[in-house]
Amino acid sequence: MSSIRIGLIGLGTVGTGVARILIENAELMRRQTGHTLELRHVVVGDTAKARQIELAPGLIRGDIEALIADTECRIAVLLVGGLEPARSIALRLLTAGKDLITANKALLAEHGTELFEAARLHGRSIAFEASVAGGIPIITNMSQCLSANQLSGLSGILNGTTNFILTCMDEKGQDYGVALKEAQHLGYAEADPTMDVDGSDAAQKLAILAHLGFGARAYWKDIPRLGIDCLSPLDIAFARELGCRIKLIASARLDQGSLALGVSPALVRLGSPLAEVRQAFNAVALHGDAVGQLFYQGQGAGEKPTASAVVADIVDTVVGRAQITFNLLQLWSENRPAVPLADLSQTKSRFYIRLTVADNPGVLAVITGILGAHLISIASFLQKEPADSPGGPVTLVMMTHVASQAAANAAIKAIDQLPITSARSLCLPVMD
Amino acid sequence: MSSIRIGLIGLGTVGTGVARILIENAELMRRQTGHTLELRHVVVGDTAKARQIELAPGLIRGDIEALIADTECRIAVLLVGGLEPARSIALRLLTAGKDLITANKALLAEHGTELFEAARLHGRSIAFEASVAGGIPIITNMSQCLSANQLSGLSGILNGTTNFILTCMDEKGQDYGVALKEAQHLGYAEADPTMDVDGSDAAQKLAILAHLGFGARAYWKDIPRLGIDCLSPLDIAFARELGCRIKLIASARLDQGSLALGVSPALVRLGSPLAEVRQAFNAVALHGDAVGQLFYQGQGAGEKPTASAVVADIVDTVVGRAQITFNLLQLWSENRPAVPLADLSQTKSRFYIRLTVADNPGVLAVITGILGAHLISIASFLQKEPADSPGGPVTLVMMTHVASQAAANAAIKAIDQLPITSARSLCLPVMD
Repeated sequence: MSSIRIGLIGLGTVGTGVARILIENAELMRRQTGHTLELRHVVVGDTAKARQIELAPGLIRGDIEALIADTECRIAVLLVGGLEPARSIALRLLTAGKDLITANKALLAEHGTELFEAARLHGRSIAFEASVAGGIPIITNMSQCLSANQLSGLSGILNGTTNFILTCMDEKGQDYGVALKEAQHLGYAEADPTMDVDGSDAAQKLAILAHLGFGARAYWKDIPRLGIDCLSPLDIAFARELGCRIKLIASARLDQGSLALGVSPALVRLGSPLAEVRQAFNAVALHGDAVGQLFYQGQGAGEKPTASAVVADIVDTVVGRAQITFNLLQLWSENRPAVPLADLSQTKSRFYIRLTVADNPGVLAVITGILGAHLISIASFLQKEPADSPGGPVTLVMMTHVASQAAANAAIKAIDQLPITSARSLCLPVMD
Repeated sequence: MSSIRIGLIGLGTVGTGVARILIENAELMRRQTGHTLELRHVVVGDTAKARQIELAPGLIRGDIEALIADTECRIAVLLVGGLEPARSIALRLLTAGKDLITANKALLAEHGTELFEAARLHGRSIAFEASVAGGIPIITNMSQCLSANQLSGLSGILNGTTNFILTCMDEKGQDYGVALKEAQHLGYAEADPTMDVDGSDAAQKLAILAHLGFGARAYWKDIPRLGIDCLSPLDIAFARELGCRIKLIASARLDQGSLALGVSPALVRLGSPLAEVRQAFNAVALHGDAVGQLFYQGQGAGEKPTASAVVADIVDTVVGRAQITFNLLQLWSENRPAVPLADLSQTKSRFYIRLTVADNPGVLAVITGILGAHLISIASFLQKEPADSPGGPVTLVMMTHVASQAAANAAIKAIDQLPITSARSLCLPVMD
């Protein structure tokens, strides 16, 4: 049985998991590939740093030169985060004739076109199962298993950190700030959680899935996004009264040939699969013209689940499936037909609207007047007497009938300019 | 762009769906494969029968001779149910040098060894995504996407008919018989529903998944199975009081190197993904050592969802992925290491026990005495006064602590032999 050399760049959480699986499940790897997989090069930024895993002496190097020079090693696994030096390393590896496997979603979302072009130029492949949704094999499912389908929609919980925070707010009634601290304490959120909580991380992953499933060429920064830091425990409680749970949803909707993309907290009906996704789990709900509804749920991050996705890519690359898929899909290429992007303001849904207004006579007439003028009609209405400050501002919550995002935005803007409005209003889509 | 000839045997529900996708999504097929897929032969049992689809004149034949003789047609899609003539046709197709795609689970469960041996002998592949769980691509996920994992457990809702019936019983409070009639009326159940409701269909699918995911060589008839016809609306209601829903679960559990397989109605906790699977949907929950928990839900049957799986196999076969996977996995081969099967009676779980006994003084002491003698301790206990026949038999329901299946069986047998027992007792496992 011949041996296949693997080069690993990056020995953080996921890199350690990959090394562990290659070593601990070596016999399984032999069965899955017909070869012995040999971890031949491990490249790290700091060779002096203590590691969670014991590797053969001499295996770890501080630069990629030995890996680049080893022409027998044709498979490189890039598990370095951020854009640089990840981009330069990726280009050097491809140029040196190595098939690439990466989990770096930011790299693909920013430099997909450049990297995929370089790979095609050098006859190499790029596999990136681990870049979206951790252990859920959503990339292979969308690029291979659903090949018979024209997809029409996708809704995903693609960020485990925010789902963990929302679960704490829902189950323990915690404030956003308290829940965030707990997430940081448990290692689910980073010291600077901005990219997670403002929806940027989910938008990067959505850009990749939208490209894969719909042919969209969307720059992730152009995807409209609202984070979860605007939510209060009140919203969680009101949503519950309306039979819903609030989740950070990354969504793609194909309507009349154009694709609407967005990331926003949204109300999801209790009992629907997405509503029941708890803790740091990720999930993807898809709709295809042949398959109908399809739903996936799994661990969205962590050493072993993400490594499971990386190693599946290693196996696919060793046996040749990855190259077939790579060559057929023409990802990030001019040869792939692009779907036009929709103006998100023209998309329609029901909305959850939370207003904070003075508790005066006539206020309700003003509010409903503005909504009516924007052709927004109210399906249900909740108002609670303020418990702590009688005479103070009151919270009004409405569920609307179907309206356009543009109408909802305009109405909210008008309401926020009223002198009776004492805090910024919140407007969230409600999923069907 | 070159053209690839496809032969289709069987033009029932799924066959019609496959033909529709190949024709209606022709452009998508070209993008996915790099070839034009040409439906060149359609073989049916009765050429005079009216069809739901219009095909080019001369395409439909009453025998496979033209397909066999067409050496340019290397891909045959066998969508004929039952064992014969499906088995003979499959062997002829393989011998004639055609790669095979099939949705026939019974054929694989009965004749997998013979068919896979014939395929290997003739250098051909067999793909069978559609044989289990309809539109859920569980075969590809288990044989490819989870290649880094040693699986430790699988729980599946693999039969849509029974899940539809259980949903009716749960949501509408219907009797089993009434719900079955509704399922038959809506086309979810066949005139003779035996294979569905007694767990045989689920056992055939479980045998395939257990072979694929765990290397088990289990003949489906040897898998212990209990059907749903033993359930009464009382059980559904009692389960609800215990915070659970009853689902027909096909399960595989690896414990200390041996695999326990079984099909049985089981209590599943409300809020867990499997409990929320409604109507005719199928679902699979997996546990792998790297990926952790992974959950899939989708349409388990129907023209288009099942055709989605078949066409994904066609694409994989056209582009060469199916052959790679087929050659590596050594399915139904002596070369694949086999896991020993566990004695199911030694497996442990909590149990739901429903007894029907005379409402006499001392009865409870006798029952609890028998359970105690078998080392079964009771976690919770429900008894309702009989509304319709005072003094008549009374229903007792218990949830036990963890006990072995053997102990539960022995205790139930002893209780069923008591003169105070007036109807057969029911004992169902409770899922963690």
